[in-house]
Amino acid sequence: MDIAVLGTGTVGRTIAGKLSELGHTVVVGTRDPQATIARTEADPMGNPPYSAWQAEHPAVRLAPFAEAAASGELVVLATNGAGSLDALTGAGEENLGGKVVLDISNPLDFSRGFPPTLSVKDTDSLAEQLQRAFPAARVVKSLNTMTAAVMVDPGRVSGGGHSVFVSGDDPGAKRTVVSLLESFGHTDVVDLGDLSTARGAEMYLPLWLRLMGALGTPFFNIKVVR
Amino acid sequence: MDIAVLGTGTVGRTIAGKLSELGHTVVVGTRDPQATIARTEADPMGNPPYSAWQAEHPAVRLAPFAEAAASGELVVLATNGAGSLDALTGAGEENLGGKVVLDISNPLDFSRGFPPTLSVKDTDSLAEQLQRAFPAARVVKSLNTMTAAVMVDPGRVSGGGHSVFVSGDDPGAKRTVVSLLESFGHTDVVDLGDLSTARGAEMYLPLWLRLMGALGTPFFNIKVVR
Repeated sequence: MDIAVLGTGTVGRTIAGKLSELGHTVVVGTRDPQATIARTEADPMGNPPYSAWQAEHPAVRLAPFAEAAASGELVVLATNGAGSLDALTGAGEENLGGKVVLDISNPLDFSRGFPPTLSVKDTDSLAEQLQRAFPAARVVKSLNTMTAAVMVDPGRVSGGGHSVFVSGDDPGAKRTVVSLLESFGHTDVVDLGDLSTARGAEMYLPLWLRLMGALGTPFFNIKVVR
Repeated sequence: MDIAVLGTGTVGRTIAGKLSELGHTVVVGTRDPQATIARTEADPMGNPPYSAWQAEHPAVRLAPFAEAAASGELVVLATNGAGSLDALTGAGEENLGGKVVLDISNPLDFSRGFPPTLSVKDTDSLAEQLQRAFPAARVVKSLNTMTAAVMVDPGRVSGGGHSVFVSGDDPGAKRTVVSLLESFGHTDVVDLGDLSTARGAEMYLPLWLRLMGALGTPFFNIKVVR
């Protein structure tokens, strides 16, 4: 499948690398490809510059948001939450209409330090904001409840099987995302319901962050036991 | 142990019944015992009146909040979130000082219907509000992330082992609560850290509510797989 991955950080690279490994044709979208490639220093999270990752993934092309989105049948939104709306705006309504948009982003606000707060919550969600801004896109929220490495390799959590959630208004779009999740190795996909249920998945992040602090590792996930 | 359970709803009854069964001396606290006993109709959740439960649990005494709290070495706050501060105020600072207060309540606001919103979140929690209001109490948040029957009977979830969280500033108080949880049958107690981590446990509620909707049952819980 032709897939666009918007975002060049850890989540974008991890998802793009895995999709490429699975045989998909992947174009990574960024605001300014030349600037992204020109960076030579590690990012604030300590990740090596994109050019280093690019050199190891020659099959993955880097393009402006709009060109990437135009190339994809499916668009993965893998920016940080503060950049989500800008990324989709850069992608352009005309390149999103009718397409599945898999929203992995979290509305984390680090402006007051760590732990971050949520910039939207309770009566709305980032996923719903994006869906309202791009009504012709078929937004599905998923994968935002675990660290990037676990998203594409559930076995990275040593303690056994765990769960991943999907939220969305379009049943067909959710089926497409579920297939993708299964191709990553996920075995327990819990369909929470319509896109408003993304409020639940996004508001879990504060607990995820405290769990990471208590466990001293991001390589965990939750299993819904029932 | 002498234990006070504040609250006469499902959570209060379930906890009080289990504690009594385990051999503890339990006094249930309510604002107005005579009014509580005088009710003859089911509550809005469909629970039979307290008098019916009382008849089946003759060893559990009903008393005003202050009398109940005075009798207990440990105080369990099992009201709904909107009533938590009033219940502790009724209990009285003098009856809470130095005592472990196990806060099970959730800051759910049903004033705009279902699903409820959270009345406090993100930069504060109900547990922290209670701790600030009663600084001499040793507040521990726990058990708020599952339905009442599962709190006291983890085996009620058929799919296997699952996790319960504790948050609190007082290590000794947390140890007391962990012992209590283990006496209920919990085998995976995750210490999230200080009381501010209760924000995470409380903000999980929106996900819990969507999971209940998706699964069609409250008899589930999450396991932290690591």
